[in-house]
Amino acid sequence: MKPPVTVLGLGAMGTALARAFLAAGHPTIVWNRTPGRSPELDALGATRATTAAEAVAASPLVVICLLVDATVHSTMEGIDLTGKTVVNLTNSTPDQARDTAKLLDAAEYLDGGIMAVPAMIGGSAAFIFYSGSAAAFEQHRDTLATLARPEYVGTDPGLAALHDIALLTGMYGMFAGAIHALALAGSEQLPAGSFTNRFLLPWLTAMLTSLPRIAKDLDDGPAEPAGSNLAMQAAAYDNLIDASVAQGVDPSLVVPMGDLLRKAVAGGYGEADLAALVGVLRTAAG
Amino acid sequence: MKPPVTVLGLGAMGTALARAFLAAGHPTIVWNRTPGRSPELDALGATRATTAAEAVAASPLVVICLLVDATVHSTMEGIDLTGKTVVNLTNSTPDQARDTAKLLDAAEYLDGGIMAVPAMIGGSAAFIFYSGSAAAFEQHRDTLATLARPEYVGTDPGLAALHDIALLTGMYGMFAGAIHALALAGSEQLPAGSFTNRFLLPWLTAMLTSLPRIAKDLDDGPAEPAGSNLAMQAAAYDNLIDASVAQGVDPSLVVPMGDLLRKAVAGGYGEADLAALVGVLRTAAG
Repeated sequence: MKPPVTVLGLGAMGTALARAFLAAGHPTIVWNRTPGRSPELDALGATRATTAAEAVAASPLVVICLLVDATVHSTMEGIDLTGKTVVNLTNSTPDQARDTAKLLDAAEYLDGGIMAVPAMIGGSAAFIFYSGSAAAFEQHRDTLATLARPEYVGTDPGLAALHDIALLTGMYGMFAGAIHALALAGSEQLPAGSFTNRFLLPWLTAMLTSLPRIAKDLDDGPAEPAGSNLAMQAAAYDNLIDASVAQGVDPSLVVPMGDLLRKAVAGGYGEADLAALVGVLRTAAG
Repeated sequence: MKPPVTVLGLGAMGTALARAFLAAGHPTIVWNRTPGRSPELDALGATRATTAAEAVAASPLVVICLLVDATVHSTMEGIDLTGKTVVNLTNSTPDQARDTAKLLDAAEYLDGGIMAVPAMIGGSAAFIFYSGSAAAFEQHRDTLATLARPEYVGTDPGLAALHDIALLTGMYGMFAGAIHALALAGSEQLPAGSFTNRFLLPWLTAMLTSLPRIAKDLDDGPAEPAGSNLAMQAAAYDNLIDASVAQGVDPSLVVPMGDLLRKAVAGGYGEADLAALVGVLRTAAG
């Protein structure tokens, strides 16, 4: 028989997690602050606990998926965690994850970052970052793999959230660029589908291949710029903003990159490559 | 024998264009405002004209690659363009390209947008958008293919610049996201190379596959959101900014996407998908 699992929190994501455990044959104990949430889990064989403490007591592995870490803290307050592994999949920042790890230090603690929407849980495209107790990860890896491909990224409990947030910001940047490009295409009534499939998608796919080179510059020190240096890019950038405005497209998604290019040039990085912007972004926050 | 070509402007890009024509066996007449630029072209067999008018007179096909369209206008003023095809590859906005087309209406006019850095000219990865005279494009397609894969996008001379600018803004959005993600990774001293190759690149590659669905929403009207709707994304977005600031990373590249999400929700698009942001971006500029 597969080991039992407790799931705290039955929002859309918590429900998807519980469903995946149940589908894989794990006895699954669920709890939600508002009782009766996600009635479909009952038909799949879920056991409902009436309190969080009761739910925690029922399994060695406790998966938490609540709205925010503050809710995790209030929910877990006073519950005996001796001998438990807690996997906190609640959205959090790295610092929040570290705080929660300290607060729940009676348990073996893993923090997680889910790289999927609920519908993807249990499917092949989803993955989940984990960080914290390496022993807990090894012990429960097979159970956690039921949810999504597990990616363990280190003992610091903040690292899963860091990876999660880094990939999401990367994704939103890509979407911001694509949305701006589609708005430009729309300003001349170009069909979005053919513009995307013929040009935007192949172009962005090709441009992605320069990321490993940028990363190599960061790890090994800058190589010769392979394309245009930052001074040339900064000089050409205004044209992109002017043309967007002339086409009736709000340039606000693309303005900050021009500001960063100018700041980099002013800071002496005019001859450098895009990788130099990473350092400027970190200095600028200081 | 291959037809002769004139190249006006021997900056880095103009020089690369002339070199590609010469390498392919086109008699190539070159002119630059400052004489003697790019002496390596002489060894490759280029013919130097002493005036722009002389260079234009020497070939039926005139390729212009100057700094800005204003330079194109002053350079071409008073030159007889009867029977000529002018291909203007100078960086411009759609409106500038339309103005230049009008100004040079004695010629068959093609405007172009080069999707490459100079080192890529003549190679297989580069392509060039063309718009304007369809007849001129058909007539000179083979010659132009010497430079890069030609992509003709319509008779409106502004459309090549529009496509160029749309892809560049898309690219800069993607790079902005990646640079922010790499700054976050760097804030915890993660090696950029393994972070990129193991996570960032595969993730962005996977996320790109949602662009055709976004485009389909734009062409056919919105389908049910396949992931999180905009209200959910707007609510979760602050976490990305807060965590970035806490990690010492300037959030300015990622802030505007959060603003746009909030504006879309306030405008009644909370239940919609990312495609709705395209319309919000166009309305916001009005």
